Amino acid sequence: MSSNFIPDIVVARLPRYLQALYQMEEEGKHSTSSQELGDRIGISAAQIRKDLSHFGEFGKQGTGYAIPYLVDQLQIILKVKQVWDIVVVGTGDLGHAIARFQGFANRGYRVAMVFDNDPRKIGGKVGQFIIQDMQNLIPMVQQAGIKIAMLTVPPAVAQSVAENLVRAQVCAILSYAPVPLHLPAHIKVEYIDPIIQLQHMTYYIG
Amino acid sequence: MSSNFIPDIVVARLPRYLQALYQMEEEGKHSTSSQELGDRIGISAAQIRKDLSHFGEFGKQGTGYAIPYLVDQLQIILKVKQVWDIVVVGTGDLGHAIARFQGFANRGYRVAMVFDNDPRKIGGKVGQFIIQDMQNLIPMVQQAGIKIAMLTVPPAVAQSVAENLVRAQVCAILSYAPVPLHLPAHIKVEYIDPIIQLQHMTYYIG
Repeated sequence: MSSNFIPDIVVARLPRYLQALYQMEEEGKHSTSSQELGDRIGISAAQIRKDLSHFGEFGKQGTGYAIPYLVDQLQIILKVKQVWDIVVVGTGDLGHAIARFQGFANRGYRVAMVFDNDPRKIGGKVGQFIIQDMQNLIPMVQQAGIKIAMLTVPPAVAQSVAENLVRAQVCAILSYAPVPLHLPAHIKVEYIDPIIQLQHMTYYIG
Repeated sequence: MSSNFIPDIVVARLPRYLQALYQMEEEGKHSTSSQELGDRIGISAAQIRKDLSHFGEFGKQGTGYAIPYLVDQLQIILKVKQVWDIVVVGTGDLGHAIARFQGFANRGYRVAMVFDNDPRKIGGKVGQFIIQDMQNLIPMVQQAGIKIAMLTVPPAVAQSVAENLVRAQVCAILSYAPVPLHLPAHIKVEYIDPIIQLQHMTYYIG
């Protein structure tokens, strides 16, 4: 495996390759080509070959990629051979949906703990989880060694909750709150905001 | 306004500028600079000035941007002065969360119609909406003139439902199903898949 610097834009594409390969496996396919993979996800075959070449040599000229092998290698690169525990903070409609989401299984993640600050919710259940008191977030998350959080709290409290997650040693946050978080540089933060994506599309229509 | 080709990557950043400006308005601010805007969203001041320069001259050297004016101009560019109707297809946990989501208001969108194919759900309510029968999707969406869809159906049916949306004259689809859709080139498609973003982050941790 090359130890060169890998551009983040390349890293960002690897999960999409892995997702498409899982889908091919479900369809019963055993091998594929960069052309076929690229057609599926709308990326050129040359780009896929170039992206993968950062990490090693995974296919053979003419015969393409053995899907189980490439899946295995991508799982290693993305560190999803292991299963990562996730803490969900906020149990509104969206937190509820995440806590009950079945799609994490076999993709490297599982929800492990759920928090809210609403006394009417604390102690109740969402999916299979008992809703924990936000006041206990720092010690509980730290003790459990959870490194990844999904944040579905209202925008006004997102920053302070995120800071508590960092104090609890969380190092990656996927936030659904539509506000930019300001956290230490070593913390990875990504956002999901459907409005941003809708506005991107409406620019082109109408 | 320049009629030059605008790179898509520039267009993709505009909604984030608009979001940050809304937040500044809520805080009672009246003007800002590319430096301040950039600090908020983690983009350089130079990049912001360059992006905005594709569309015109919005600020003054030394005094920066009048927020209401820049908001207004970005709303026009992104076509969100008007309110776009959205059709939501699929009323599982996630469709449910979207149909009840309060965050669309004032950002250019509103849910207008909700569909499912489950006979036990059809005719019932989700939020303020009566769940419509998927069999009526094409005529109902077409007649209502809805151009934007949010798709929260299971992956196995996402492609066929998306094709029906295209038949109904929808031209932008935001899909939560973790499968790539293959649609005519003029249809805008974006995806939301938390696993893709989680895997992107776990590459860097652990």
